[in-house]
Amino acid sequence: MHRSIATVSLSGTLPEKLEAIAAAGFDGVEIFENDLLYYAGSPRDVRKMCADLGIAITLFQPFRDFEGCRRDRLQRNLDRAERKFDLMQELGTDLVLVCSNVAADSLGDEEILVDDLRLLGERAGARGLRIGYEALAWGRHVNTYQQVWNLVRQADHAAVGVILDSFHTLSLKGDPAAIAEIPGDKIFFVQMADAPILAMDVLEWSRHFRCFPGQGEFDLPGFLAPIIRTGYTGPLSLEIFNDGFRAAPPRANAVDGLRSLLYLEEKTRQLLATDAKAPNLDLLFDTPPASRYHGVEFLEFAVDEAAGAKLSGWLQRLGFAKAGEHRSKDVSLLRQGDINIVLNAEPYSFAHGFFEAHGPSLCATALKVKDGTTALQRALDYRGHPYRGLVGPNEREIPAMRAPDGSLIYLVDQAEAGQTIYDSDFKLDPAAAPAGSLQRIDHMALALPADSLDSWVLFYKSLLDFEADDEVVLPDPYGLVKSRALRSRCSSVRLPLNISENRNTAIAHALSSYRGSGVHHIAFSCEDIFKEVERAKEAGVPLLDIPLNYYDDLAARFDFDDEFLSELAYYNVLYDRDAQGGELFHVYTEAFEERFFFEIIQRKNGYVGYGAANVAVRLAAMAKARSGVTRQAKL
Amino acid sequence: MHRSIATVSLSGTLPEKLEAIAAAGFDGVEIFENDLLYYAGSPRDVRKMCADLGIAITLFQPFRDFEGCRRDRLQRNLDRAERKFDLMQELGTDLVLVCSNVAADSLGDEEILVDDLRLLGERAGARGLRIGYEALAWGRHVNTYQQVWNLVRQADHAAVGVILDSFHTLSLKGDPAAIAEIPGDKIFFVQMADAPILAMDVLEWSRHFRCFPGQGEFDLPGFLAPIIRTGYTGPLSLEIFNDGFRAAPPRANAVDGLRSLLYLEEKTRQLLATDAKAPNLDLLFDTPPASRYHGVEFLEFAVDEAAGAKLSGWLQRLGFAKAGEHRSKDVSLLRQGDINIVLNAEPYSFAHGFFEAHGPSLCATALKVKDGTTALQRALDYRGHPYRGLVGPNEREIPAMRAPDGSLIYLVDQAEAGQTIYDSDFKLDPAAAPAGSLQRIDHMALALPADSLDSWVLFYKSLLDFEADDEVVLPDPYGLVKSRALRSRCSSVRLPLNISENRNTAIAHALSSYRGSGVHHIAFSCEDIFKEVERAKEAGVPLLDIPLNYYDDLAARFDFDDEFLSELAYYNVLYDRDAQGGELFHVYTEAFEERFFFEIIQRKNGYVGYGAANVAVRLAAMAKARSGVTRQAKL
Repeated sequence: MHRSIATVSLSGTLPEKLEAIAAAGFDGVEIFENDLLYYAGSPRDVRKMCADLGIAITLFQPFRDFEGCRRDRLQRNLDRAERKFDLMQELGTDLVLVCSNVAADSLGDEEILVDDLRLLGERAGARGLRIGYEALAWGRHVNTYQQVWNLVRQADHAAVGVILDSFHTLSLKGDPAAIAEIPGDKIFFVQMADAPILAMDVLEWSRHFRCFPGQGEFDLPGFLAPIIRTGYTGPLSLEIFNDGFRAAPPRANAVDGLRSLLYLEEKTRQLLATDAKAPNLDLLFDTPPASRYHGVEFLEFAVDEAAGAKLSGWLQRLGFAKAGEHRSKDVSLLRQGDINIVLNAEPYSFAHGFFEAHGPSLCATALKVKDGTTALQRALDYRGHPYRGLVGPNEREIPAMRAPDGSLIYLVDQAEAGQTIYDSDFKLDPAAAPAGSLQRIDHMALALPADSLDSWVLFYKSLLDFEADDEVVLPDPYGLVKSRALRSRCSSVRLPLNISENRNTAIAHALSSYRGSGVHHIAFSCEDIFKEVERAKEAGVPLLDIPLNYYDDLAARFDFDDEFLSELAYYNVLYDRDAQGGELFHVYTEAFEERFFFEIIQRKNGYVGYGAANVAVRLAAMAKARSGVTRQAKL
Repeated sequence: MHRSIATVSLSGTLPEKLEAIAAAGFDGVEIFENDLLYYAGSPRDVRKMCADLGIAITLFQPFRDFEGCRRDRLQRNLDRAERKFDLMQELGTDLVLVCSNVAADSLGDEEILVDDLRLLGERAGARGLRIGYEALAWGRHVNTYQQVWNLVRQADHAAVGVILDSFHTLSLKGDPAAIAEIPGDKIFFVQMADAPILAMDVLEWSRHFRCFPGQGEFDLPGFLAPIIRTGYTGPLSLEIFNDGFRAAPPRANAVDGLRSLLYLEEKTRQLLATDAKAPNLDLLFDTPPASRYHGVEFLEFAVDEAAGAKLSGWLQRLGFAKAGEHRSKDVSLLRQGDINIVLNAEPYSFAHGFFEAHGPSLCATALKVKDGTTALQRALDYRGHPYRGLVGPNEREIPAMRAPDGSLIYLVDQAEAGQTIYDSDFKLDPAAAPAGSLQRIDHMALALPADSLDSWVLFYKSLLDFEADDEVVLPDPYGLVKSRALRSRCSSVRLPLNISENRNTAIAHALSSYRGSGVHHIAFSCEDIFKEVERAKEAGVPLLDIPLNYYDDLAARFDFDDEFLSELAYYNVLYDRDAQGGELFHVYTEAFEERFFFEIIQRKNGYVGYGAANVAVRLAAMAKARSGVTRQAKL
């Protein structure tokens, strides 16, 4: 499809916006009138700039409060239109968006509305221009696409057509099915916007909370599918009013915008795949389906010698065995259950650069996939950045790409025993035996800068076809924290993403110590929490102290006997129970170098969450640990 | 009144909160259960801490989902209550807040609700404790205070009373009048919270957007007045769920909280003053009424020699005359019309300290008042900070206080001609004659750090009895800017306050160059904008270039002839017209040292705004000026 974006979706001056739009690979741009107004060059200058950048001006917008205006204002409104038509001709675009009248004194008489649209269409048509009529969700008399099509149909003029905007329909819970009844050539333009579902005034919602397709909660493939069915082949354009986008760097945000359209096209193509009559499916973006994931193959930490020794010590106290050393590099492997952790202290490596920039930190995550080469191809189709490192003799080359924070995501094919990357790349110690019984990486929580959450969600949804859970808001003693969990479709890989909009929360501290985003904690699953924690405690793992008042409250909320409660409190084990009876037991370590920490977790009866009910007490305990105060010994 | 605040209103750990509450001068505190839960000490430790700090624990809260619970859960709920009663006795408080049940499966049968409340009251009463029942606005069956009182009346138990919360009533547009019918001794507790009027889900609104009385839009004196009429003399307590407060420094925020209660008491006292039967008025905060203001007496800029010479040059090009030098200090006076501007380069002065910290900047604003001594007393009653500087021989001492950014606000009595502070403190040049005809200071816009807006609004509303206009949101090319204008009641002093939540807006740039908040621009009024601007342009005042596209749009919107439009464009004059036909003409200078700028403004036909419609084009032009691009000469 022809892909377009409205200038209002990005921050910056008009030239900055246009350059970002072209660089991201869009075919066209909607010029939002205010962006032109505030620009010091002429409309012809803008036309030339777009031509030089290779992007078409797909639309000029908006033209407001025209149809059904008070009759004594009609002539004045037509004069206004003619001035804007002059401007469009200078710009070199033939289509203007006319949005439905919001004036309290505007007229709703159908005949008047039809006549006005036809009149404006005649004026436009006489100059080789076209008008597209769009229903604003808060229009005074016209606020659905059904009304718009009814009026456009009656106006019956070649220069008058329909403009569809997903937000205006889906925000009012409108059914897009009837779009399929509009002839494709009478749909002049299509605007796509997603949004989180918010119970608020629709105008405020629209002006501040729209987001790119895939970042919100609307069913956008369900909106686009009937449009494709009409035979429409015009632009798909993003018109996103978003407070965060208004301040975000325009180049990176434009790349997200293009990616969101590709994602929407892929999902729509899938939706229409079974419909033999659906036209033009080959115009929609196509890429190999995502891999099935079989969990995390390994995690790689960037360390130097000192940090490597310290982290290795922590992991061994957590029950890991030193399982081997890399054949040619300063890289060691620790293992327990299905968990593989690689500590990379190799100079002149990617990990070394990462260590220099961020200190001891997670520099790579390896996912177990069915076919790494195809999985990488999908990522590249989605404008991902591939990574190829130096490969030594006897080492395997693993397909890899960059995550948004610059760390690596490896895509590792599943291999037979004895043929794994560990067998090829490492000198393994056959005698290594872990002291603990941790089983798998349950989840990895990331700390991200505020406002980058949407970008990460889109990255994982599109390149890796992950799903995103709903956002939850959690209290830290020094501000609120937002969390949204990403999951592979089988839930074998889970990534809660956390942001803080305030400066003094635990998340914000982690970010500042990382100088960038980074893994915030890693949760290991087990089958017997008390056994694991007892072992860890004896081995000297520093567990995060939980206030006893927390256990008094558990006693009030649940029917536990005192002995069991004492055991929970003694081992600092947190507890949660969901509405279906699923149970969670989990315990946290203190922070490693104030950067990240570990969690030991036991899920029972199908508990699927992350213990959100216990995050506040954990954050308070961490704030306390940061301030250096220790728990009063009471047990 | 006994003044209290809930721990949830402030950020930090429980000890940090309690210390801030005591330091601000509150008498008591509501312990929000989660704050206790996350605290590592015992309830007895909290009791001791409060006793040591001299604050009473006025309430323990909340106890949820009790009355009308499913019958098979009643016993378990009573057990839960007994555990919390244990806790309250350890804490040393006798009152618990029971909020109305929100559970979907809870029962609404009146008889059951009454029985449950009586049962809980009997349990509490047997231990010398009391329960206060409060309607949550989103309660399943009970969501008004009228329902609460009806049930409490029927429960008819000494240990069962009513808790009122302004938010839960006013958010549902409830009428507080019927509160006056509740016996004062059956009202056990009163919570006060303000909020901006938002069209959104009431639970989200309550959890994130409450604010201190006077910072929002609720009629809180109208809510408190009927409570006072009942004879209630218990605590007035603040229970504020606010995302910003959760991250704000707790000490400064607690001071705002106390100030907001004093303000509410003053306004309620005024409301009840005409009611001869209203009891206990002497319990409400009292302070002298605010002065009438007669405009700005003078503005004082902190400069050094170089900045002073440069700023003096700018002002002279703007038509000011050098009117005199201070008798004993390195301070000069520039005058035009009713405008007095003082440039202070005196070493070892307050201004010098301000200059060292903030560079060339506004360090004091002098307001013309009727009685400066009384005005200062009012500010001190409101916990304002007085300022006394060094006074030389033949100099007048002017009552002064600190603004929230540390600058000074002088309160200058009006004086006869020849007896003014200029006559006493300055050697005036009788021959000085301004070249321009600027008349008055129309307004001064301030740039503030994000999240400090509410604090400033409360400062001006309480200490100086200013009024606040509604907040407006304005687009800068690099993010949104929020603005809220403060006015003295006669509008002779106007202060639009601006904040930016993003880092790259013009407001954010001004803040970073100030290292603190500061005046962002100063608008001078005139009677003939074209005459003033022509003079200023000839004198070499650098005017901010406005894009010609702006004037093309004016042409489309208004019925101007081309000659007039050309004149507007030639002089970079912006135009706005309000719904009542009021007109605004205004022009901006470029920024002085990237810090502040000046505006020349002409209001016609009673225009009362600040040209919000033109802020976006101004901000875009300023962003462009910052990036060093100059306008293409087209005229």
